[in-house]
Amino acid sequence: MNVLAADIGGTNIRVGIVDDAGVVVLRDEDETPSSGSAEDLANTVAKFARRIKDQSNLDIAVFGLAIPGVIDYDSGRVSLSPNIPQMNGMKFGEMVSKATGVQVVLENDATAAAIGEHWLGAARGHSNAICITLGTGVGGGLIINGAAFSGADGTAGEIGHLNVEPDGYPCGCGSRGCLEQYASATAVVRMAEERLSAGETSSVSRSDSMSAKDLYDAAIVGDDFALSVFATAGRYLGIACADLVNLLNPEVIVFAGGLASAWEVLEGPIIAEMKLRAYQQPAERVKLCRGELDDDAGILGAAKQAFTVINKGNSRS
Amino acid sequence: MNVLAADIGGTNIRVGIVDDAGVVVLRDEDETPSSGSAEDLANTVAKFARRIKDQSNLDIAVFGLAIPGVIDYDSGRVSLSPNIPQMNGMKFGEMVSKATGVQVVLENDATAAAIGEHWLGAARGHSNAICITLGTGVGGGLIINGAAFSGADGTAGEIGHLNVEPDGYPCGCGSRGCLEQYASATAVVRMAEERLSAGETSSVSRSDSMSAKDLYDAAIVGDDFALSVFATAGRYLGIACADLVNLLNPEVIVFAGGLASAWEVLEGPIIAEMKLRAYQQPAERVKLCRGELDDDAGILGAAKQAFTVINKGNSRS
Repeated sequence: MNVLAADIGGTNIRVGIVDDAGVVVLRDEDETPSSGSAEDLANTVAKFARRIKDQSNLDIAVFGLAIPGVIDYDSGRVSLSPNIPQMNGMKFGEMVSKATGVQVVLENDATAAAIGEHWLGAARGHSNAICITLGTGVGGGLIINGAAFSGADGTAGEIGHLNVEPDGYPCGCGSRGCLEQYASATAVVRMAEERLSAGETSSVSRSDSMSAKDLYDAAIVGDDFALSVFATAGRYLGIACADLVNLLNPEVIVFAGGLASAWEVLEGPIIAEMKLRAYQQPAERVKLCRGELDDDAGILGAAKQAFTVINKGNSRS
Repeated sequence: MNVLAADIGGTNIRVGIVDDAGVVVLRDEDETPSSGSAEDLANTVAKFARRIKDQSNLDIAVFGLAIPGVIDYDSGRVSLSPNIPQMNGMKFGEMVSKATGVQVVLENDATAAAIGEHWLGAARGHSNAICITLGTGVGGGLIINGAAFSGADGTAGEIGHLNVEPDGYPCGCGSRGCLEQYASATAVVRMAEERLSAGETSSVSRSDSMSAKDLYDAAIVGDDFALSVFATAGRYLGIACADLVNLLNPEVIVFAGGLASAWEVLEGPIIAEMKLRAYQQPAERVKLCRGELDDDAGILGAAKQAFTVINKGNSRS
């Protein structure tokens, strides 16, 4: 059995055909259009989907679609998509469904990543798992009692907006000191820039194009400054992990997203801070690790939700 | 149908017979013995239970028992009870069962309070609810998808140890800046003492016997100092509530425990801080309120777990 699946990000759209063993049998990828209406975006996604479906010649009934936004699962409406605001308030799944003739199942992208890692990646076999996605922002997905948990209105899992510094850096969400302001790729670069401006020195020179990857490249060859920036990010991730461990007692916390490629330099500080703060028993039992599916976590999670709909109707709890 | 139920606290033991409508048909209460082994405590609880059972002349098969500790629900062992350390590592339910001849169902006291409020109190009718107990410490219980959630090892719900001030006051758990250090009855008194020692003035005079109730009594008649102490506690509770709202998107957060009687002076600061920090949609939807069952929340939650065992085996998820 096969489904269509896509992961729409602020930068790229990935579309694929996924079989029920989780193999992406065909895939396509392109940039997310930077302008246009939600209708235009739905048509673009539909065009990719039709093209890949025609190539495959497979009979496909359901399309799992991961989007960067909060979904009202009852109405199918996108409640809030800060990165693709033209989706706000739209029944985006219905639009893509009309344009493709295939039933669409929407899922939040961070939740989809958690579902993907739970199905085939680092969280498989665990009933209670948390996935933290470290990218431009910090997202989160919760697996509780074996199923994705999205709360009363679909907004649960906003791990990037756990408070880690009550009077800290202002956050786009309106609060201050959210984890996202200390542990996203954006935050790592900002913290480095602030410290370089204040006179610290590093093999990484301050420039408008400095990236989290530049800092990581410096850190793995022993640049103390870069290591210290990742240690700060790791400390705040450790504070948030201690909160998650004390509150939800998960079996595993999986780190996905682009910045998780810096796991080698984040792991030590995260685990040290988490152990310093969390209750001993759940802290000893929880496994903290990098995701295993890389960029495919979202598309595989979206595919899994499509199979769930095929197999027994929407099992969202 | 009737069950035995008890709530063992650090100070008092309450025992009752509860019917399946949640009416406490008979009750007894006494001080928790301050010394003795776990066996002694089990015998004391059993003595109360037998006495009340004999009075009632009812046929009772199950005894729900709320205790202040972490329970390994698989083995029935108490993993950790900071306030009654003689329980640590003991199969306390089995001990009470042997001494009474009645099957015992153990539940953590804060989880029991959440179950009680969900069954008959302020959280009834809500599938996703959180109960925060404000007492000597700060506890928490989670209702997820309609059932108590205790995580992988029974340790979930430690809301009192969410971090609200990363370099804050040292906590008994080994971390710093836990909510419990700013929002328990103990913390409210400590914060008041610190500020009075630093020269602030109040109608409440500094003394070794100053209690949270003294401060509350001053606050409700307009003592600015006492109001400001509760505002600080409320602010930190608001930070923690924003974390809970962003992470779990609950329908209701219920405040129980002795210090919840100060709800009148806590409510404003809690809600203001929570709304400042949490995502707008889940913050607007969540209801924050005081529990409706007062001191009976724990015993009623323990009773509910006993009925659950009778009705369909242990439904713990």
